[in-house]
Amino acid sequence: MPNLHLQEAVRKRKARRVRFDGLRYRRYVDRVHDVPRGTAVLDEAVVYGYPRIGRILALQPGIEEQFEAPFWAEEKVDGYNVRIFRYQGRPLAVTRGGFVCPFTTDRLPDLIDVGLFEHEPDLVICAEIAGPDNPYLDSGPPFVKEDVELFVFDMMRLDRPGFLSQEDKRCRLERYGLPSVEMFGRFTPEEVPRLREVLLRLNEEWREGVVLKEDSARDRRAKYVTSNSNIQDIRATAYNIMDLPPEYFTNRILRLVLFLEEQGMKRTPETQRQLGAAFLEGLRDAVDLFRREHKVYHTHRCRFRRRENAERLMSHLHGVKSHEVQVQQRNLYRKGGYWVLEFDRVYPGMNGLLGHLLAGGVAFD
Amino acid sequence: MPNLHLQEAVRKRKARRVRFDGLRYRRYVDRVHDVPRGTAVLDEAVVYGYPRIGRILALQPGIEEQFEAPFWAEEKVDGYNVRIFRYQGRPLAVTRGGFVCPFTTDRLPDLIDVGLFEHEPDLVICAEIAGPDNPYLDSGPPFVKEDVELFVFDMMRLDRPGFLSQEDKRCRLERYGLPSVEMFGRFTPEEVPRLREVLLRLNEEWREGVVLKEDSARDRRAKYVTSNSNIQDIRATAYNIMDLPPEYFTNRILRLVLFLEEQGMKRTPETQRQLGAAFLEGLRDAVDLFRREHKVYHTHRCRFRRRENAERLMSHLHGVKSHEVQVQQRNLYRKGGYWVLEFDRVYPGMNGLLGHLLAGGVAFD
Repeated sequence: MPNLHLQEAVRKRKARRVRFDGLRYRRYVDRVHDVPRGTAVLDEAVVYGYPRIGRILALQPGIEEQFEAPFWAEEKVDGYNVRIFRYQGRPLAVTRGGFVCPFTTDRLPDLIDVGLFEHEPDLVICAEIAGPDNPYLDSGPPFVKEDVELFVFDMMRLDRPGFLSQEDKRCRLERYGLPSVEMFGRFTPEEVPRLREVLLRLNEEWREGVVLKEDSARDRRAKYVTSNSNIQDIRATAYNIMDLPPEYFTNRILRLVLFLEEQGMKRTPETQRQLGAAFLEGLRDAVDLFRREHKVYHTHRCRFRRRENAERLMSHLHGVKSHEVQVQQRNLYRKGGYWVLEFDRVYPGMNGLLGHLLAGGVAFD
Repeated sequence: MPNLHLQEAVRKRKARRVRFDGLRYRRYVDRVHDVPRGTAVLDEAVVYGYPRIGRILALQPGIEEQFEAPFWAEEKVDGYNVRIFRYQGRPLAVTRGGFVCPFTTDRLPDLIDVGLFEHEPDLVICAEIAGPDNPYLDSGPPFVKEDVELFVFDMMRLDRPGFLSQEDKRCRLERYGLPSVEMFGRFTPEEVPRLREVLLRLNEEWREGVVLKEDSARDRRAKYVTSNSNIQDIRATAYNIMDLPPEYFTNRILRLVLFLEEQGMKRTPETQRQLGAAFLEGLRDAVDLFRREHKVYHTHRCRFRRRENAERLMSHLHGVKSHEVQVQQRNLYRKGGYWVLEFDRVYPGMNGLLGHLLAGGVAFD
């Protein structure tokens, strides 16, 4: 096993203790040498963190700058990233940050055939969990209409950093009948026009974008998103405009402009209207909500097989909450064989500002 | 004369030395007790700073919260604020920050009849300087088509804080033939619907908004702007999206939403399109400019009567420049009896980002 620099990480408080349902482990809250953030160190196994992927904003010349060899293009799905593995007989899912996710872990039997770990006990499946009924995100991809679905995009091994090759991954997707992100094939760096066509189609379908993976030993990667996914993000989060970092919005507008330029879309009144509407309707929703209920919040709903896991999710969310967001449980009830948890994320920045201004207060700027 | 707390202000480095063409004086870079920021202390006179005016985002209930008596409504013009006075025989104009402005001071004889100071040597005229050919702002009001114009909105006395009454101001505007901001009359706090009509007209004409001044001893004030002025601001500055504080944009979108709500404008596809276009076209201009010239900048052009004042403006701008903006002189030439100065403001944040991303670099977020 490569060097985890565990003592140094513990000393610098970068490998913190966590518990989940009787398990005790450490998660890396930050990179330590070449050990990525999100690495989970259990007594008998290490799950390496999923590395960050840089974003290009221009396919031309981004592709030729970043890639020296042909690359695979795969769909980037608008969800949250988990690594799934079996430990001491039970399947677990850890988030990007290295927490065991009580929701995903609870729902694993609905999402994949966990029997696959009988065949390959050291397999780690990297997947996006996406859909409207998830505990973390305000939105999801258009093709998941309810609950959540799972989309595999990489595989790793316990105790090892790095990914299985594209061939090894595809063979296991098929063998275990795993749902995967859509794969658009292999492209040479000269085939930017063909890649643009893929992205134009994804954009028309309001899908997020692509992850590109070099077909080489260094496995270099980059991501690139559609203009409509930026509009979608802004629409989904504008109600929260004062609690998100403002760069959240300005970065997305820049990506949008460069996507349109890349595609040669010069005059785009419909895109203009959609961008304006994303801001105006999102904020109007917040104002209407505040007038009705005197707070701005977003309700999450997700279903669990076991009630304890809903409770574990709530205490996890209370534990990691920042001072900027309050998490408040709304409801937990039995329906259709599941426990349905409803909770709100309340945004104090927006509440304070709207409360002051809608009451006729003045702002100095 | 009220207490200036000058020794304290000097000790705390809040009253700093400045020079202008043989004059030496101090300017308050910050409020000290009740002495406002921008106060200029000369050997034989004090020009009090122009106080900050709070902004309401909702007329209803903002008016009734802020005002206990009828108030005057006057146009808020999109320019920069100066205080004009005569000192040791020469007319001077100081900016909000308390600097003598070489440009405005140079052009005063074109803008007002400075002979008025013969009649009232202690008069201080508070005015907005607005128009496309100004050294500070990216935009101006639609009704000033070239150069700059002056619009008086308040009067003060040397050595005294506070403003002349509305009656005293109007009488002097007339007597001295001074151009003023448009005045919309006197409103009771119950007359919000009539004020809304004024704002709807200003909005249709793409004008900025109003300043409201209570007709009472306390002279309470508040400002309120139109939705279109927010779109106009965003369009004029989107090229600079990475160098302005991002709240610049989010605050304006919130003001826009509350204006539309105030006016009962529920479905506004044209406003949506204009807001989206403001961002997209502004940023596209920046990208196009960067591709052509490898830098993002805005060219200012302004004309002077005397060449030395153009040079003084340049050294003033070099002196106050922040690390975020570079000022570069482009040209200084004689035309139509004036010296025409052209200079660029270059935005390193935008240059660095576009340079990296358009060359195919990756961003991590």
